[in-house]
Amino acid sequence: MADLIEALREGLPPEALVDDPEVMAAYGSDMAGFCPAGAPAVVVLPRTVEQVQHVMRTATATRTPVVAQGARTGLSGAANASDGCIVLSLVKMDRILEINPVDRIAVVEPGVVNATLSRAVAEQGLFYPPDPSSWEECTIGGNIGTASGGLCCVKYGVTAEYVLGLEVVLADGRLLTTGRRTAKGVAGYDLTRLMVGSEGSLGIVVRAVLALRPEPPRPLVLAAEFPSAQAACDAVCRIMEGGHVPSLLELMDRTTLRAVNDMTRMGLPESTEALLLAAFDTADPAADLRAVGELCTAAGASEVVPAEDAAESEMLLQARRSALVALERVKGTTMIDDVCVPRSRLGEMLDGVAEIAEKHDLTIGVCAHAGDGNTHPTVCFDASDPQESARARVSFDEIMGLGLELGGTITGEHGVGVLKKDWLAQEVGPVSLELHRGIKQAFDPLGLLNPGKLF
Amino acid sequence: MADLIEALREGLPPEALVDDPEVMAAYGSDMAGFCPAGAPAVVVLPRTVEQVQHVMRTATATRTPVVAQGARTGLSGAANASDGCIVLSLVKMDRILEINPVDRIAVVEPGVVNATLSRAVAEQGLFYPPDPSSWEECTIGGNIGTASGGLCCVKYGVTAEYVLGLEVVLADGRLLTTGRRTAKGVAGYDLTRLMVGSEGSLGIVVRAVLALRPEPPRPLVLAAEFPSAQAACDAVCRIMEGGHVPSLLELMDRTTLRAVNDMTRMGLPESTEALLLAAFDTADPAADLRAVGELCTAAGASEVVPAEDAAESEMLLQARRSALVALERVKGTTMIDDVCVPRSRLGEMLDGVAEIAEKHDLTIGVCAHAGDGNTHPTVCFDASDPQESARARVSFDEIMGLGLELGGTITGEHGVGVLKKDWLAQEVGPVSLELHRGIKQAFDPLGLLNPGKLF
Repeated sequence: MADLIEALREGLPPEALVDDPEVMAAYGSDMAGFCPAGAPAVVVLPRTVEQVQHVMRTATATRTPVVAQGARTGLSGAANASDGCIVLSLVKMDRILEINPVDRIAVVEPGVVNATLSRAVAEQGLFYPPDPSSWEECTIGGNIGTASGGLCCVKYGVTAEYVLGLEVVLADGRLLTTGRRTAKGVAGYDLTRLMVGSEGSLGIVVRAVLALRPEPPRPLVLAAEFPSAQAACDAVCRIMEGGHVPSLLELMDRTTLRAVNDMTRMGLPESTEALLLAAFDTADPAADLRAVGELCTAAGASEVVPAEDAAESEMLLQARRSALVALERVKGTTMIDDVCVPRSRLGEMLDGVAEIAEKHDLTIGVCAHAGDGNTHPTVCFDASDPQESARARVSFDEIMGLGLELGGTITGEHGVGVLKKDWLAQEVGPVSLELHRGIKQAFDPLGLLNPGKLF
Repeated sequence: MADLIEALREGLPPEALVDDPEVMAAYGSDMAGFCPAGAPAVVVLPRTVEQVQHVMRTATATRTPVVAQGARTGLSGAANASDGCIVLSLVKMDRILEINPVDRIAVVEPGVVNATLSRAVAEQGLFYPPDPSSWEECTIGGNIGTASGGLCCVKYGVTAEYVLGLEVVLADGRLLTTGRRTAKGVAGYDLTRLMVGSEGSLGIVVRAVLALRPEPPRPLVLAAEFPSAQAACDAVCRIMEGGHVPSLLELMDRTTLRAVNDMTRMGLPESTEALLLAAFDTADPAADLRAVGELCTAAGASEVVPAEDAAESEMLLQARRSALVALERVKGTTMIDDVCVPRSRLGEMLDGVAEIAEKHDLTIGVCAHAGDGNTHPTVCFDASDPQESARARVSFDEIMGLGLELGGTITGEHGVGVLKKDWLAQEVGPVSLELHRGIKQAFDPLGLLNPGKLF
């Protein structure tokens, strides 16, 4: 280990290397529960591509595993340290290198915080859509590693759709350039997209060319109360079938609404079974909200309240954004699932989750990117109660099983990491898994990059 | 060879197998020039997934190369037969299996013609955007294999962005399922996207889940005449920088305009150096056209003519769609390049192409998906004149070199195939190429799938 640190020191400035165990402890894990984390041998915080290359060459020479990290806001344990590994934190590589309004691209280092980029491009009338709930903290590199989603996906898609090209340091330290700066490009295999969502298992992203859009008008939001989750899901289907393109279509169940009220005193309606939020950032959002409001009423909404202005809209979105934190306070600990089903099956999914909660005598709050069919059933439990914890873990798995039964996926946007590793095989099957291993072998023959994650 | 055909016959109905050399000759090549094509041992036209699996198992057992084909409208030679190969034509697998307006997806077999799908989904108020010029003939399987673009990409993106999931028969006959039916999904490596644009080198796509959008309003088109290509490109930059989102932004140079007039008697303005077509399918397209018209005037347009109705708009688009066929008539043969540059460099690209044409005393007509920076410099030459042919080939290469110099890619939407194989290495470099080979090895260890293409 002394040799490893000595070798790393040769190509890194002193402040880029941390081996104090107490400081290192802070780099152990991301925000997922139930995921084992080891003790790193060393934490490095490079500032240049060359320094990352030096780290990877050293890792290869010493056969040391490397775990890449951004802001550690991930929810699958993908960024958890393994024993004796090098934790490679990219947070100091945080420069926005270029914003180009004609080409509608930004070129950034991986440590740039999502919100920092979003604000910087907004100043030039541009829009970087991907907006995970953790957007004030999470980094673009982490977003790319986990293929993050967010609230805007129903209209604007996920991180993957905004990554045009990458620079990647491979396991052996060589630099790979993928993709392009152009609007289109089909030269060779799509290695860019292969990297997105690969959770640090194929290489270290050190630079990204991102696509931007022109900034849309500010959205207006409508809130609709439903007597059942089923009715709210019916409204979602009617809205999408009706050809509407909301910029956000979110659902919160009663458990979630209560939790948000308890935390924020926002006065959300607690007697309702499900609240749907729909937003439009179109030229005439009020007209869109009227049309969608009528569909909600037809689906059985007891109350439909369009926000009158941007401030009221922002308050409603704030309620949704605080849902996960609020649910954490219910019983001290949560396990957040991330199952995505075809939106036509959303009602069945929510009914099934309610059954699972009842069967195991658990509180499971559900919020969902309803327009995407992407649910976040959040198991609330007391971690000091081993029996309840065990039931939480079982219910978490049952929720994934239900998602697969309904033609869905175990993860819509959080990734596989450690948490869902056993389930990946079940979702993709043995043929796909064999190809995953073959690809991994091509990129990382020594198996040094984030071992033990994904598959 | 008799053994091969006998083995194939065991799992295929008689009509699915063609070994008459005269009939087989029709399956030799796609629409690219300058690409060698071999003589297939046999052509098979399966109708089921099981039949494709039988073909691939037989190919593996007999070590026979397999070349997948759709409508053979490709422009890179990717679908050209190699000597002794099995040509695997997917055109008989042409069923639309599902169109789901709530989930906004279609599930199709690979032989479905692009226009057939587009019309079928339009009947349900839905929209499948990718629209290659050959859309009346080309198949979805071919579009996926080559990652096709089209006229709509500037707003709606390319084929890749509409492929959610695939079923793929691997080289050894096993069935791989990739991706999802859901709006989002990040479980494992993005094998779906890896397949898109892989030109039949990794597996045989036998089923695709495609994303659909709600059908937009019918577009209105504006035509603007410019005294120079440079001024037209300046207008393109102003339009995109101004935050406009045209559904089409196309450029035709004087050579192209003349060729179209000669063929169609459309009466396009021949005295102008460049014609720009901009379309909007927004709620108020007339307002968008006014704003864009002003930007064109500011960039130096001599004439700005908004179409008054859908019929006039359609005529203008028809002119653009007939450009490549019209250019073919100029000297009998064309080589269509497909270089895509950042749109901010489009003016330099067109100037450079003009210089290359002059240097080699050649006629090179340029039409371009200008909003994407995707140019189609089309070298017009007399194939019976060996010297002119040689100069055409040299200029074709110089155009790709220029594209790379300007930060572009050798292919925006046509693919690599045989035509640009030597150039792929130049664009992506040796590290990327090594990874391409590793991926190929993981999918197709015997190298049976479309050998000699791509890299």
